Amino acid sequence: MELKRAKGTRDFLPEEKITRNNVVDILRKTFEKYGFNPLETPSLERMDVLSSKYAGGAEIMKETFTLKDQGGRDLGLRYDLTVPFARVIAMNKGLRMPYKRYAIGRVFRDGPLKLGRYREFWQCDVDVVGCKTFVAETELLNIVKEVFDKIGMDIVVKVNDRRLLDVIIEKSGVDKEKINEVILVIDKLDKIGIEAVKKELVDSVGIDKTVSDKLLEIVLCKGSNQDKLKIISSFIGENEGFDNLNNIFNEIDFLEFSPSLARGLSYYTGTVFEVFMKKGSIRSSLSAGGRYDELIGDLVGDGKEYPSVGISFGLDVINEALKLVKNEEAVKKTVVDTYVVSIGCSEETRKIVQKFREGDLKVDFDLLERGVSKNLDFASKAGIKYVVLVGKKELEAKKITLKNMFSGEEQMLTINECFKLLTSELVH
Amino acid sequence: MELKRAKGTRDFLPEEKITRNNVVDILRKTFEKYGFNPLETPSLERMDVLSSKYAGGAEIMKETFTLKDQGGRDLGLRYDLTVPFARVIAMNKGLRMPYKRYAIGRVFRDGPLKLGRYREFWQCDVDVVGCKTFVAETELLNIVKEVFDKIGMDIVVKVNDRRLLDVIIEKSGVDKEKINEVILVIDKLDKIGIEAVKKELVDSVGIDKTVSDKLLEIVLCKGSNQDKLKIISSFIGENEGFDNLNNIFNEIDFLEFSPSLARGLSYYTGTVFEVFMKKGSIRSSLSAGGRYDELIGDLVGDGKEYPSVGISFGLDVINEALKLVKNEEAVKKTVVDTYVVSIGCSEETRKIVQKFREGDLKVDFDLLERGVSKNLDFASKAGIKYVVLVGKKELEAKKITLKNMFSGEEQMLTINECFKLLTSELVH
Repeated sequence: MELKRAKGTRDFLPEEKITRNNVVDILRKTFEKYGFNPLETPSLERMDVLSSKYAGGAEIMKETFTLKDQGGRDLGLRYDLTVPFARVIAMNKGLRMPYKRYAIGRVFRDGPLKLGRYREFWQCDVDVVGCKTFVAETELLNIVKEVFDKIGMDIVVKVNDRRLLDVIIEKSGVDKEKINEVILVIDKLDKIGIEAVKKELVDSVGIDKTVSDKLLEIVLCKGSNQDKLKIISSFIGENEGFDNLNNIFNEIDFLEFSPSLARGLSYYTGTVFEVFMKKGSIRSSLSAGGRYDELIGDLVGDGKEYPSVGISFGLDVINEALKLVKNEEAVKKTVVDTYVVSIGCSEETRKIVQKFREGDLKVDFDLLERGVSKNLDFASKAGIKYVVLVGKKELEAKKITLKNMFSGEEQMLTINECFKLLTSELVH
Repeated sequence: MELKRAKGTRDFLPEEKITRNNVVDILRKTFEKYGFNPLETPSLERMDVLSSKYAGGAEIMKETFTLKDQGGRDLGLRYDLTVPFARVIAMNKGLRMPYKRYAIGRVFRDGPLKLGRYREFWQCDVDVVGCKTFVAETELLNIVKEVFDKIGMDIVVKVNDRRLLDVIIEKSGVDKEKINEVILVIDKLDKIGIEAVKKELVDSVGIDKTVSDKLLEIVLCKGSNQDKLKIISSFIGENEGFDNLNNIFNEIDFLEFSPSLARGLSYYTGTVFEVFMKKGSIRSSLSAGGRYDELIGDLVGDGKEYPSVGISFGLDVINEALKLVKNEEAVKKTVVDTYVVSIGCSEETRKIVQKFREGDLKVDFDLLERGVSKNLDFASKAGIKYVVLVGKKELEAKKITLKNMFSGEEQMLTINECFKLLTSELVH
C-alpha cells in the first residue's frame, strides 16, 4: 500500500518548519510585547456555532469540513479564528474589556486548490475588543511594523476607511444597490489592473463609463496622504473616516493611504489595512485586518457593544515571501549547531555532548558510531556549522579539534575553550 | 442562540494557555538541544493511511473522527503523531538515518469522556529512527530528566524491557497463548493494586493461584536495580534485555527498574519507560515511551529496517500536575509585566510605552483613558506586577512613578532609570 497525504494538505520537514517556527516565535513575542495574551480554542466546533447567522456566511459554509461525533452531534472544523473567539466571549461574560488576545492555529477550508491555497493552513490573529478609538488601530499597525522589521522584509502598509469608500462610490453616481458589487470589483485592482476593473464595472456591473472613470480617478488619486485626503474630502465632504485616518496618520508615519482598499464586503465598519511586499513577485497580502464593530456583538447577541479591531498574519504567504527574500544558503536545514564526532572514544564523547548541552548548545552526535569521514559528510549535508572531533590522544591533554564546516577552518582547543567559544557565538 | 463548545473540547484562556506555552517552550528547547528537528504533519489524513493494517489498530479506529472532502475522499483526523511520521518516512525516501524528529500537535479521539480525557488533545513526541543501540534510549531519558527539572517537578522514571516480561510470564507457568492477556492485567497494577490484579489473573484470565502469586512476587521484587536484575536473571536465565538495561543503567543513574512495567500490548519490542510524579495525586504517567523496532518498517512496507525509539509527553497531564505543584498565586494570569497609566497625558504615555517595548518589556496601557483608580484596579485584577504612572507635572522633569503592585512599594524615577530597572528585572 502506498502511503499518501490527504489532498490539499502539506508536511513541513525541518528545512521549512524551522523557518515557520522562527516566524511564529517573532509573532508571539511581538504580540506579547504589545500586551496581547494567548488564547487557544479547539479545531472542532459545533455546526450551529459555525453556521450561525452572523458567522462566516454562506460562501464559507460551502467550504466547511463537516463531521459527526459518535453521539451524532453535528460538528465542523473551524474555518477561521474569529468565530471561535466570539464564542469564547459569549461563554465568558466576566472578561474585562478591553480584551486583547492573540491566537495562532490551524484553520480548515474544503475549497478548490489554487496556487498557495491549502485545505489546512495557519492563521495568526491579534484582536482588541472593547475599544472604539483609533488607538487600538495604532497598536496593531505598530505590531505590523515590528514583525516585518524582525522578519527582515520591506513592506508597504495600505490603509483606508470603509466609511469613505462607500460614500465615494455613491457620490460618483453609482446606484445604492450596486455599491457592494462595485466594491467587490474595485477589490480586484491589485490583481487584475485598472483597465480590467473599468471594463468589469461597465460590462458586468452596468455602470456608465463616465461614472466608472470618475470613480477610479478618485480612488486612485496620487500624492501624499494629506493630498489624497484633500482630494477625497473635496469630493465627498464631511465624513467620520477623515478624523479616524488623520488621527492614525498623525501617530504612524509609514502608512500609505489607499482610497481603493476595500478588503471585500464582509464585516468591516471603519479602518481597513493590508500589508504587501515592497518588492517581489508575491502580490497577495502578507497580513490584513480592520475594524469590525458589529460582528462580535451580533454573534454574542446579548445587546451589548463589542467594538473590535483585528489583524491576521498569513503564515503561509509570509513564508513564501521569505523564500524569495532570503537566499538558498541562508535556509537552515537543521536546528543542530554542533556535531560531536568520536574517534574511538564514544563514552567520553557522550560526556562532552552532555556538557555542551548544559550550556544550551544544540548538539548532536553519531548514534551509529560510524567513521570520521562518514560523519563529516553527514554534518556537511545536514548543514551543521561546527564539528567537534574527539580523539583519544588529544583527549589525554583535555583537547579536542573544532572544525568550522562553512569556512573549513580547524583549531585545537581545550574542551573548556571550545565550550566557551561555541556558547558565546551560538547561544543567545 | 446560545454559543457552546463541541463536547469533549476545551478553550484555554490566558491563565491556562500561558502555562501551557511555557511547558511547550521547555519541551521544544530541550528537544532541539538534543539535536531533534521539528516536523509538522496535517491534522487531516487519508483513511487508508489511518486504518492501514499496521497503524493504530481496530480499537483506535473506533475512536477516529471520519469525514469526507467535497471530492468524496475518505479522511480522518489523526489519532496520534506516529502513523503520520511513518507516512512521512515512506514518502521521503532520501531521509538520512538516524532521523531524529520531534512533533508537537493536536490529535483527536472520539472516545468516551472520563476525567482528564478529551476529544482533542496535544501530543509532544520525540523519536529516533535508525538506531538499534541503547544510546538512543539514553538520549531520550536525558531529555526526560532535563524537561522535568526545568518544569520544576519531582519525578520517578520507571524502566523495563519487554523481552524480560514476556519470558518471566512464560517461566511462571502461564500458557503461551495467555501471555498477552496477562500483560494487559499486569499493566493495571498502578491503577487497581496488587490484590485486584491477582484476583483478575485467577478469576478472569484463569491462571492458577500459585502461578499468579509467583509471577507477582517476581515482577514486584524489591531492592536496587542490580538486586532486581539478579533476582530476575536467576529466574529466567540469559536474555538480551539484561544487556540492554545494564547499558542504560550504567549511563543513567535516576532510573527505577520496574519489571512489571508493560506499556500495554501494542508495538513495543524492547525498552519501555514511564514517568510519574514522585508525590501528588496524579497517577497517570506524565510521559511514556519505548523501543518499537518493527512498527515503522511494517507501515512503510519497503522491506527495510527502521529500528525506532520514541517518547511522548502528555501536555494535558503535565499541566494538571503543575497545578498541584505550583501554588495558586504563582499562576500567571497575563503576559503583561508593565502597565502604563496616563494621568492626563495620553500622547506622551504612548511614547513611553513604545520606548519600553523597544527594550522587550511586555507593556500594556489603557486604551479607554479611564481614571487612575480604575486603572490600578484593572492592573491589580489582571495580575500585572508593575504600574508606571505618568503625570503632567512629573513629566516636565522627565520623571514617572513606578509602583510594584505585589509589594505596594512606590518610587519616583526618571524614565530612563525606570526603563533600566524594569528591563534588568523582567527581560531575560
